[in-house]
Amino acid sequence: MSRFLQALSVEEAVAAAVRIAPSPVPEEIAADEAPGRVLCGDVIAADDIPGFDRTVVDGYAVRAEDTAAATESAPALLRCTGRTAMGETGSTLPVTPGTCVYVPTGGVLPEGATAAVMVEYTEISGDTVLVKRPVAFGENVLRHDEDYQRGAVVLPAGRRLSPQDTGVLAACGRTTVTVAKKPLVGILSTGNELVPVSATPRPGQVRDANAPMIAAYLREYGCIPKIYGIVQDEKTSFEAALSKALPECDVVLVSGGSSKDDRDMTAGIIAGRGEVLVHGIALAPGKPTIIGKIGTTPVFGLPGHPASAYVVLLVVVRPLLARMLGESRSSLVTARITLGTSIPSQKGREEYVRVRLEDGVAYPIFGKSGLLNTLVQGDGLIRIPAHCEGLEEGSTVEVVLW
Amino acid sequence: MSRFLQALSVEEAVAAAVRIAPSPVPEEIAADEAPGRVLCGDVIAADDIPGFDRTVVDGYAVRAEDTAAATESAPALLRCTGRTAMGETGSTLPVTPGTCVYVPTGGVLPEGATAAVMVEYTEISGDTVLVKRPVAFGENVLRHDEDYQRGAVVLPAGRRLSPQDTGVLAACGRTTVTVAKKPLVGILSTGNELVPVSATPRPGQVRDANAPMIAAYLREYGCIPKIYGIVQDEKTSFEAALSKALPECDVVLVSGGSSKDDRDMTAGIIAGRGEVLVHGIALAPGKPTIIGKIGTTPVFGLPGHPASAYVVLLVVVRPLLARMLGESRSSLVTARITLGTSIPSQKGREEYVRVRLEDGVAYPIFGKSGLLNTLVQGDGLIRIPAHCEGLEEGSTVEVVLW
Repeated sequence: MSRFLQALSVEEAVAAAVRIAPSPVPEEIAADEAPGRVLCGDVIAADDIPGFDRTVVDGYAVRAEDTAAATESAPALLRCTGRTAMGETGSTLPVTPGTCVYVPTGGVLPEGATAAVMVEYTEISGDTVLVKRPVAFGENVLRHDEDYQRGAVVLPAGRRLSPQDTGVLAACGRTTVTVAKKPLVGILSTGNELVPVSATPRPGQVRDANAPMIAAYLREYGCIPKIYGIVQDEKTSFEAALSKALPECDVVLVSGGSSKDDRDMTAGIIAGRGEVLVHGIALAPGKPTIIGKIGTTPVFGLPGHPASAYVVLLVVVRPLLARMLGESRSSLVTARITLGTSIPSQKGREEYVRVRLEDGVAYPIFGKSGLLNTLVQGDGLIRIPAHCEGLEEGSTVEVVLW
Repeated sequence: MSRFLQALSVEEAVAAAVRIAPSPVPEEIAADEAPGRVLCGDVIAADDIPGFDRTVVDGYAVRAEDTAAATESAPALLRCTGRTAMGETGSTLPVTPGTCVYVPTGGVLPEGATAAVMVEYTEISGDTVLVKRPVAFGENVLRHDEDYQRGAVVLPAGRRLSPQDTGVLAACGRTTVTVAKKPLVGILSTGNELVPVSATPRPGQVRDANAPMIAAYLREYGCIPKIYGIVQDEKTSFEAALSKALPECDVVLVSGGSSKDDRDMTAGIIAGRGEVLVHGIALAPGKPTIIGKIGTTPVFGLPGHPASAYVVLLVVVRPLLARMLGESRSSLVTARITLGTSIPSQKGREEYVRVRLEDGVAYPIFGKSGLLNTLVQGDGLIRIPAHCEGLEEGSTVEVVLW
């Protein structure tokens, strides 16, 4: 009954997409532009970090054993021989039995000291410091290599860098970093019913909402989208737009025209200039999807329904882009969440249901895939595997958050 | 015992921060730059969307009642009177009893039709279409206002726009959108031990990792960070840097020097030129935090330990920025996750523990707040409320994902 007799499983389709992904292209960028980019090659610590033993409290550097018996009523009495200045080393006497040195947070632990006592647990009487609590060996001290050891992999290749990672790059003295170049992804919209966003649609026409949505998704994921505008369902203009996009782009996405209606030309045009690898995926929404390549350029045909296009971007296109970026671990944010309503599903196809989260419970938003409002009201997507006939209320499900 | 005798609760500190937040400043930007920005004012649908009744399948527009008795073996026979061309209306005869019209996905539902039959469930014999399944009234049709009704709030003020929202803006014909201006946030680093990232630290010195980390965090959250560099723990240069930053910035963050050691000047300098509202928060890590204002500019003193600084950014600074952006709902991504190991905590202060996720279970990463590696290895933070003495293995906890 289906026009997609050979609808491939999602797993097979993703494998086909990943196989045609071009390799990551390294480029060196300023470290402050690193967040969101994917590392090409490990970042290695050139030196120990922090590089010297330092205290993590304002207080007194001591020999731990000198404080072993200290109590509130019978404090240990230590003679303070000086103060360490921040950023300097060797500015004080070594700590010897019965003595201590004042060190502010982050200061160098003087020679001989093995721990630091917080100033809160001390009292001063002349040049004697009363220590009212014992400290253990190493307490309140960061060892010279406790954050990172010289030669250690600080950030591994394939990691998508976070804001925190910028701090680590800085600690390692890196002002630049080598990351995967952002793939340039072309977007062509096809459909005689489409008009540009700035136009007022006549009856029967709609504004092209998918291209800007796809572009925004790609930009957020770390690609450079390029919109080639709307082409008519007519071979010559489609071919012309494709000929313009192919040499400029690393990947081309064709929005619409991916079904098997007579007017849907995407598959035919890809086949004419290259190869159609997949046409039809056992995925709902998102069945009418094409994966092909022209030369070495992956070309996708995405369904025209916005929710379908979004699911295909997430489920099929994103793994290809992840490979092009060399990402070692999915950067999809997922969470295991209790389902608030049962969801029926048809066996034999993987299904993605938009869900809304309320007080930590996920509620499905049922709605036609031609609607934008379900994408906007939703907080994420639930995946229902192909072998599954549905999900039960109260069960724990994995939600892809967006 | 504590030098922070008046350590405020996190709730009170956040309230104090939010109270001094400047109001959002609207600015109009291109719609393709909208993702991540926060809407000022509702976006209203000027027209119904999609604007006309359209089919969502390739197939035949019919009167639903004509198919009521259709089965595989006894199909309904309908005479096909034409084909609708995409993007056009009135190009076919109305659908009358016993007739149908071919309409591709997204085409206009002809007058008289009340549903569409998928082509998969039909067969053609001359100009007769055999319909093998009944369709209900409205089936496979998107009503003219099913996505959005004219006048409806499509996207509400205070919403942080997603890539999907870009699609909705496009459908509404919006090429620009009014959002809150990005706050310009100045970052001053203090500490005699700090050297710039490009320098090689001598013993006792460390590179300034916090400023780039804070900047990256702010940028990701939708602010414009401006780094003013490192100032010595010395009043004149600190005052000079602050005098430069204050007129240029909407908010100033001072990294380091926020404790109560003699050398920590931040509180004194803020007090001298404005007002210190909070000094010390019942928060771990993050106790030595200052909230103040100079003129109308909020000025924060952040702890120098990177993990502490990060927690304070997230827990205290972010709510102020959210208010400046007019954000109506926290954009923190949180998930309820099972805890893999018990975590003890000290009552009376709110504690944030870095956690790593493994197979959907959260494991705490214990480590000194002076370390960067725990921030980098972690997947998020668990909050332990102040009234709580710890969290038990196996319990469900809320994790702030980063």
